[in-house]
Amino acid sequence: MTRVDIERLRAETPGCANVAHLNNAGAALPPRPVIDAVAEHFTLEAETGGYEAAERGEAAIERFYAAVAGLIGADPDEIAYVENATRAWDMAFYAIPFAEGDRVLTTTSEYASNAIAYRQVAAARGVRVTVVPDDGHGQVSLDALAAELAEGDVRLVSLNHVPTHNGLVNPAAEVGRLCREHGTLYLLDACQSVGHLPVDVAEIGCDMLSATGRKFLRGPRGTGFLYVRRSILRTLEPPFLDLHSAEWTAPDTYTVRDDARRFETWERYVAGQIGLGVAADYAAALGMDAIEERATGLAARLRAELAARPGVTVLDRGERRAAIVTFTVEGYESAAVKAALRERGVNVSVTTGANSQYDPHAVPAAVRASTHYYNTEEELERLLDALPRRA
Amino acid sequence: MTRVDIERLRAETPGCANVAHLNNAGAALPPRPVIDAVAEHFTLEAETGGYEAAERGEAAIERFYAAVAGLIGADPDEIAYVENATRAWDMAFYAIPFAEGDRVLTTTSEYASNAIAYRQVAAARGVRVTVVPDDGHGQVSLDALAAELAEGDVRLVSLNHVPTHNGLVNPAAEVGRLCREHGTLYLLDACQSVGHLPVDVAEIGCDMLSATGRKFLRGPRGTGFLYVRRSILRTLEPPFLDLHSAEWTAPDTYTVRDDARRFETWERYVAGQIGLGVAADYAAALGMDAIEERATGLAARLRAELAARPGVTVLDRGERRAAIVTFTVEGYESAAVKAALRERGVNVSVTTGANSQYDPHAVPAAVRASTHYYNTEEELERLLDALPRRA
Repeated sequence: MTRVDIERLRAETPGCANVAHLNNAGAALPPRPVIDAVAEHFTLEAETGGYEAAERGEAAIERFYAAVAGLIGADPDEIAYVENATRAWDMAFYAIPFAEGDRVLTTTSEYASNAIAYRQVAAARGVRVTVVPDDGHGQVSLDALAAELAEGDVRLVSLNHVPTHNGLVNPAAEVGRLCREHGTLYLLDACQSVGHLPVDVAEIGCDMLSATGRKFLRGPRGTGFLYVRRSILRTLEPPFLDLHSAEWTAPDTYTVRDDARRFETWERYVAGQIGLGVAADYAAALGMDAIEERATGLAARLRAELAARPGVTVLDRGERRAAIVTFTVEGYESAAVKAALRERGVNVSVTTGANSQYDPHAVPAAVRASTHYYNTEEELERLLDALPRRA
Repeated sequence: MTRVDIERLRAETPGCANVAHLNNAGAALPPRPVIDAVAEHFTLEAETGGYEAAERGEAAIERFYAAVAGLIGADPDEIAYVENATRAWDMAFYAIPFAEGDRVLTTTSEYASNAIAYRQVAAARGVRVTVVPDDGHGQVSLDALAAELAEGDVRLVSLNHVPTHNGLVNPAAEVGRLCREHGTLYLLDACQSVGHLPVDVAEIGCDMLSATGRKFLRGPRGTGFLYVRRSILRTLEPPFLDLHSAEWTAPDTYTVRDDARRFETWERYVAGQIGLGVAADYAAALGMDAIEERATGLAARLRAELAARPGVTVLDRGERRAAIVTFTVEGYESAAVKAALRERGVNVSVTTGANSQYDPHAVPAAVRASTHYYNTEEELERLLDALPRRA
C-alpha cells in the first residue's frame, strides 16, 4: 500500500482522527462503508419495521455469505453467520460426536475460552485433552503433533492460527497436511488471523474455522462466522436447533438443513451481518497480501523500536510473526502503561497470563499493541513517546 | 394512556410517520431513546474503538441488568444478556441435567423451535415429551397438567406465555402454582409477552424465562435475555462456557460464575444490549398495565371489526387475549393479503401452521396483525380499508 492509499484509508476511518488505535486485536476501527451499512439498515428497521427491513435488505444479507466465502476461499453454503467467534467455535466444537476415550490435541498457545470448553467436554464425555508441546519458538511442534497423531484415538486437532498473547503465527497449513494424512478433524480458531493474514481454507486444509467481525476484519461488534467444509457438514449435528437450522417435518420428527446455516439461529443482529459482509468485501478489495505486509511491517518496526528501549522487554515469540506486539515496561504494571497511553490518545490492551495457562512462557500481564494497515509510523512514535520512563 | 400520550409516543417513534405498523409480534418499531442509545454507542465504538467504548459505556451496560430485572420483578444477578430469545431459551433448556426417562410437559401452542429442541433432547438423552391438551379455549388445561404432574417423572414444564399464532394468553401463574406444588422446574418462553403484558417472575413462579428485545419490548434486533431464579442457578451448567461465564482456575479446572451471567458469552452486540436496557426502562416508565390495556384494547377492537366483515374469519382463541389478531380472508392467500396491505402502507405478517404442529386448530396460513400501544384507531381502519374484497 502506498502512502496515498493509507491517507485515503485513514480518511474513510473516522476513528483515525481521534486516536492512535493500536488495539486492533481487541476490536479494530471500522471503515466508513461498514459504519454506513450498519447504520443504514438499523435506520431502515426503525423507519419501516425490523422484518420489513430484512425483506428489503435480502440481497445485502445474502452478500454476507458470498463475501466471507470469497475472502477465505470457501463456498457460500459453507458459511454460517454467528454472533461472535466464541459461539461460532462452540457451534462446531460441541457438534462433534465425541466418544469416551477420544483425544483432542491442542497447543500451548490455546486461549482460556477454548480450554474451558475442552475441560467441560472432558468431564462430560470422557474426552482426553493433550497439549502438544511447542517447537521452541512457541509455534506448535509439527514433530510432536505427528507423534501424537500416530499414537491414535485423536478425534480432533484444535488450535488457534494467531494466539492472542504472544505475537506468533501457528503453521496452520502444515497442521492441515498432518490432519489430512491421519484423517483427523481439524478446527482452526482464526479470530485473530482473518482480516490480517491471507486465510484460505483449501490451502490450510481445516474442516472448520471460526472468526470474528470486530477484530482485524474491521466489522461490527457482536458479529462472527463459522466455516464448515461441505464434506463433513452432515456429520455434525448442531448443539442447538431452531426453525431456521432445522425443519419441523412432523410432530415427532425434524430434519436439519444441509448447508452451514444449520449452525445459525433465525433471529440475529441483521444490520451487523450486513456490515460484516461489507467488511469482508472491503478487506478483499485491498488484498490480504498487502494488508498482511503493511500490518505486520508496522508491528515489526514497533517491536524493534521497543526492544531498543531501556527497560522494555518484548515478549513475542514465533518464527513467523503477526501484527501483535507484546511487551512489559520495567517498574510499571501493564495496566498502568495502558492507562498512561490512553491519556495520550493511544489505545492498547493488556493481555493476562491467566488466559494462556498452557503456555509456560506466558507472563502474568503484558501490554499488547496490535497494528493494522491504517496505522502510521507516526502513531508508533506516539506510543513510544508516551511510554512511561523510570524517574 | 390518553390521546395526548399516544401523540407524544408516536412523535418519538420515527417509523409511525411511514407505516401503520401492525407487526409488533414480529419486530416492533423502536422509540427514539432506544434508537439514539444504540446509534450513540455504535458511533462511539467507531470513533474511539470497540473496547474503549465499552469501558466508557460501562454504566449503561450495567443498567441493562437492573432495567430488565426491574421490569420483570427479578434481581439483576438473575439476568443474562443473550443475543435473542431462542438462544436464551436454549441456554436454559440445554443446561437442564435430564436423565433417561425424564418427562417434559409442554402445550398444544408450542412453537417449532422449542418443539425441535425437545425432539433433539428426546433422541439424544431418552427424554419423553408430553403435549398436555388444551382446555377447549386453546389455553393449557390446568386439570390435564395437574394429572400429568401427578403421574410423575416430570423434570420440566415448558410453555409459552403468549403463542405466536392464535391470540391467547396461557395461564402462566396458575401453571407456576402447580409446578411449585410438585417441585418441578418451570421454563416460560415469554418472547411474545414481555413488553406487552405485565410479567412478574415472582407472581408467575417460573424458574427460567426467556425473552427477546425486538418484539413488544421495542428493543433492537439481535438482543434478548434470560432470567434464571437464583435458587436454581447453580444446578444448571451452561451448555457452552467461555472465559466470561467461567474462570479457568488451573490448566485442568474451571469454575462457573455464580450469577446468571454464566449463560452469557463475553463478546456481544454491546450497543444492542444498551438499547435493550433503555427499552426496558421505557416500558417500565409507561407502566405495563397501561401498555396491556391499550395494546390489547386495540386488538379487541380490530378483532371485532374483522369478525363483522364478510369473508373474514378471525381465528383467535383463549379466554384471555393478547394483542395478536389472526385471521383469514376468503378467496385470498394470506401471503397475498399481507402483500396487498404492504402496498397500502400497513405491515402485518403471516403465521404458518407448520410452526404449530401440536395445535389441532392451527391453519396452514393466517394473517397476523399485532397491535401495540402506539398504534391508533385510524391505523386499524387503514388495515380494514386495505383488505382485499371479493370482486
